[in-house]
Amino acid sequence: MAYGYMGKVLEVNLSENKIDSYSLPDKTLELYVGNKGLGARLLYDLVPPGIDPLGGENALIVTTAPLTGTGAPSSNRFNVTTKSPLTGAIVDSNCGGNFGIHLKRAGYDALIVRGKADDPVYLDISDEGVQIKDARDLWGLDTEKTQEQLPDKTGKMVIGPAGENLVKFACIVSEERVAGRSGVGTVMGSKNLKAVSAGGNKKPAIYNEELFKEACKEWRDQLRSHPATSEELPQYGTSIFINRTSATHTLPTRNFKYGQFKDADKISGETLAEEYLVKNIGCYGCPMRCGRQVKVDEKPVKGPEYETLGMLGSNLMISDLQAINEWNRQADLLGLDTISLGNALGFVMEAGEDGFIKTDLAFGRSDNISQAIEDIALRRGLGDDMAEGVAHLAQKYGGEDYAMHSKGLELAAYEPRTAVGQGLGYAVANRGGCHLGAGYVVFLESNGPITVDPYTTKGKPGLAVFNQTVLEAISTLGSCNFTNYAVFPEFLLKMYNRSRLVSKVVNNSLMLGGNQFGKFMYSPKGAVLPKKVFHHPFPHIKAHSHCTGNEMSPEDFLKLGQRVFNMCRLFNAREGFSRRDDTLPRRLTNELQRQEEPRSRVPLDEMLPTFYRLRGWDQNGIPTERTLRKLGIEK
Amino acid sequence: MAYGYMGKVLEVNLSENKIDSYSLPDKTLELYVGNKGLGARLLYDLVPPGIDPLGGENALIVTTAPLTGTGAPSSNRFNVTTKSPLTGAIVDSNCGGNFGIHLKRAGYDALIVRGKADDPVYLDISDEGVQIKDARDLWGLDTEKTQEQLPDKTGKMVIGPAGENLVKFACIVSEERVAGRSGVGTVMGSKNLKAVSAGGNKKPAIYNEELFKEACKEWRDQLRSHPATSEELPQYGTSIFINRTSATHTLPTRNFKYGQFKDADKISGETLAEEYLVKNIGCYGCPMRCGRQVKVDEKPVKGPEYETLGMLGSNLMISDLQAINEWNRQADLLGLDTISLGNALGFVMEAGEDGFIKTDLAFGRSDNISQAIEDIALRRGLGDDMAEGVAHLAQKYGGEDYAMHSKGLELAAYEPRTAVGQGLGYAVANRGGCHLGAGYVVFLESNGPITVDPYTTKGKPGLAVFNQTVLEAISTLGSCNFTNYAVFPEFLLKMYNRSRLVSKVVNNSLMLGGNQFGKFMYSPKGAVLPKKVFHHPFPHIKAHSHCTGNEMSPEDFLKLGQRVFNMCRLFNAREGFSRRDDTLPRRLTNELQRQEEPRSRVPLDEMLPTFYRLRGWDQNGIPTERTLRKLGIEK
Repeated sequence: MAYGYMGKVLEVNLSENKIDSYSLPDKTLELYVGNKGLGARLLYDLVPPGIDPLGGENALIVTTAPLTGTGAPSSNRFNVTTKSPLTGAIVDSNCGGNFGIHLKRAGYDALIVRGKADDPVYLDISDEGVQIKDARDLWGLDTEKTQEQLPDKTGKMVIGPAGENLVKFACIVSEERVAGRSGVGTVMGSKNLKAVSAGGNKKPAIYNEELFKEACKEWRDQLRSHPATSEELPQYGTSIFINRTSATHTLPTRNFKYGQFKDADKISGETLAEEYLVKNIGCYGCPMRCGRQVKVDEKPVKGPEYETLGMLGSNLMISDLQAINEWNRQADLLGLDTISLGNALGFVMEAGEDGFIKTDLAFGRSDNISQAIEDIALRRGLGDDMAEGVAHLAQKYGGEDYAMHSKGLELAAYEPRTAVGQGLGYAVANRGGCHLGAGYVVFLESNGPITVDPYTTKGKPGLAVFNQTVLEAISTLGSCNFTNYAVFPEFLLKMYNRSRLVSKVVNNSLMLGGNQFGKFMYSPKGAVLPKKVFHHPFPHIKAHSHCTGNEMSPEDFLKLGQRVFNMCRLFNAREGFSRRDDTLPRRLTNELQRQEEPRSRVPLDEMLPTFYRLRGWDQNGIPTERTLRKLGIEK
Repeated sequence: MAYGYMGKVLEVNLSENKIDSYSLPDKTLELYVGNKGLGARLLYDLVPPGIDPLGGENALIVTTAPLTGTGAPSSNRFNVTTKSPLTGAIVDSNCGGNFGIHLKRAGYDALIVRGKADDPVYLDISDEGVQIKDARDLWGLDTEKTQEQLPDKTGKMVIGPAGENLVKFACIVSEERVAGRSGVGTVMGSKNLKAVSAGGNKKPAIYNEELFKEACKEWRDQLRSHPATSEELPQYGTSIFINRTSATHTLPTRNFKYGQFKDADKISGETLAEEYLVKNIGCYGCPMRCGRQVKVDEKPVKGPEYETLGMLGSNLMISDLQAINEWNRQADLLGLDTISLGNALGFVMEAGEDGFIKTDLAFGRSDNISQAIEDIALRRGLGDDMAEGVAHLAQKYGGEDYAMHSKGLELAAYEPRTAVGQGLGYAVANRGGCHLGAGYVVFLESNGPITVDPYTTKGKPGLAVFNQTVLEAISTLGSCNFTNYAVFPEFLLKMYNRSRLVSKVVNNSLMLGGNQFGKFMYSPKGAVLPKKVFHHPFPHIKAHSHCTGNEMSPEDFLKLGQRVFNMCRLFNAREGFSRRDDTLPRRLTNELQRQEEPRSRVPLDEMLPTFYRLRGWDQNGIPTERTLRKLGIEK
């Protein structure tokens, strides 16, 4: 059995009531490692082309990675891969929380669910064995109540009413975390699978315990000392980006018509932290604790992430942060992806305004949104159409220009006309309009520590390739993308490789998130030279992973990311996807973004009094005697 | 005699034909060090309030600093301080080249010129003595021919016809470098002083030669390895900022009406480097060589800086880079400040369009600009009024809203509505609308390595105070502000202090231009917390300078900057300046900046083919067999 792995995959066929487990070939693990890499390979092999995503032939594939449950920080994410009912393309949605750890403790690296149960069931996976259990009592419960009914001290993944009702953008919920995008919860619902619980006492073997522990400690220390992961994310969570993207016109506003929201600050991470935050919450074993806890109906619940604030806030012209807290809570309970939800609401608001749809939903009006959310989850009235996503809405009602999606997946909360590399990323992402599938190029174009010229196309294809490649590799290793900020790739590679030399080389040549950012900045036309990035001095030096004992070089690390991206592409190609699907809404490629309300002026009166005070001058702008004395200036 | 200094100031009274030299009190040198600090103190002491800047009572004060001529890299700038004829305020304009070195070699730390000669003269300063020489033959010559007539192997500072004709924004030229702003050349002209030449064989004593040399080497190595000073500035010079400021709407366009120029790339540093650059040029002893050499009339001449490209390019809607090269050359020969020049032209173009002035100057028209430049320098026709600056033009012709100045000094090439901290800086700068006097806050808001929210006022007063303070200290030490990028303050302080501990502490707590930028980024609301900046852990540790032997702590370093800023303020206060003069044009404080032509869209077709190629896919977006084979993927 390979180090880092449990050595077994659990396969359950709900149509045949069959439970099976088997080992995967070493070669498969070596090439596809875990999480989204392994998920993509398995989906390609298990699911023939052209099947109905909601039929029994589709497979729901839950994967973990070697680092999961080993004590490596920020590396316990699990992954759900399936053929998406929203897009028909591959979807891999990954999720924090602790389900992956518990699945491994039960002895499995992955769970494959095929077929369809006749009645609602849930899966109970433990050291005592695997059971398909009756879930008729759970059916109809929200995601919180469902989890409360499952055994304590296990990992849980559940769907809410949205998944049961086959809302095309239903998500899977695990603790407060969500595998959100492209209808992974819908596929679970289509199989009549309400929940999975897993737990046990097994542990993966580690290749070199001592060195591995040492590297984990170093990694944690790094996360605890880097400003992004020790200050920014703990203090403000992902919502820190709201004010920044608004400043750079990258915050979707009024269904992506504009990129700047005049009330951005009211829904910002800063306002969230100052006025609503109860405490920080975080994934198991992660020192960052970037999750927010806020109060809804006097109860402490999970607060909104950046994407939710953007899609339910600025995109709908809503500046009432508490309302967003409540809708976010409602969507989590019902099991709805808030990104697609915000898009569906935005579409209906704009199409309604222009007479395509009769609706009382309108930009800036918050009073009937909660009702609309419930209608979607329960498929009532117009909600029944909204539950099919914006591509369907445009097809049925017209207003194609208002449907902000790529490959059928609604766009995340970055307006790419002011970050064209992110636009390219959205268009070519295998799962459709997802910010992470896009390679999160926007981080370099708008809201990150450096600014690559956001308008130029020069260098952007290379930047998209590089970022996607790196994010695919990180996700495949089971780590959170936020490790990017602080430790990638130095520590990631230190975990995966034994040699400090290799990690230093990579740190100095690939580096996302640290000093070497400076290098990017000074490239011609503000763009990145991908050749410099790919061709670092010692790409071929291999070293053993402390965890798996496998060998990997910096080049192999990038190759892993490339392999996974290609594996996903291959699945899509077999389904008939090609260049014509690598596209964006006409609004983004043909219409120029306008400023709704230009707000740039110099508010001098707001700043002068403080300036004078800090200078030690009187309010007429003249140095006081005291100041002159302190500075030793004689008149 | 203090180490680092020559110990003597040369004072020449041109009315009385009197030449004198004397020592300054040690206390004065200790408190005001050199360059702009010393210049400000001397001006305050020598010039009584209310005098005519163009009268004999005004003093033209040329200062050097302890590091000048010692071998310290990028630290040979000299400074000209006087009461400005354009603004009535203090002006300190500093300049590269080598004049300061030669003045010290002749045995003087500073040169003070008072009075007024009856006929044109020049000053000849050498080991043989100081002579006031007849310059009637030089009068009327351009700045290049004038320098050719002066002795070889000496430092030179000269004026052109603009200074002779008392154009209010005439500059002083030294080699190809310029002390440009606020009419320092006008004051020279008013004294009938055409030129100064200086040279000799003296050298300042160094407190600890060995350690000083070591530190100089380290400093040079740092400049040679930091991407900003070893790659960006050598490759593109200051003009690298054009594309960046245009992307962030901070590039003055159409007389500061807009902040983005659709043809920015045509006048960018990249285009300059690719299509016009003959070679790099640089100041004596500086490894950066950020100066550009281009061809005008087949002759290699100095190319335009960022400010010139902005003010004669986008601000006039001109995209013909070779035309700007020619106007820049023409302005240098005539001795005109290109920043004020671009403003005067912009004012006339806009006022002409709106019927305030009858003119054939018009935005986007390049055919009659060269004639206008000559008319200004020779004070012909409308040029005679333009020679008085935009404040005068507005007073005479109306159109106050088009006069882009602060305290009478025309604004530099940063549109501050999209960088409000820079706007504050312009308003409070002692010499008026100068980007450096403003503290160059825009570097953090728009075109530098990090982005502080450019719209928020929060934290901006503190940031302006801090940046001004640091730049005043750097300038006072005689160093180029670009050392900022790479070495400030670690190496600067290492030069000035002996203790590595101190420099480390400062590096980690003050840091402009390095890793600690990250710290700024993660502050609340994207703004800087000046308290964190000012209160570093060990502010009081003093150490000796390798150069002067004087003691200085990090706190003293900042206090020096504060002292100099206050000294300048004190001069202005005595002249009657106060809060009502800390202002900006109404356009910037009351009108919102609009986008002329929104250009943001996602040009997907431009990027997809390259993306596919980099991925190893065919142009239909499908992985090729070769790519799959390379990645070990089996279908």
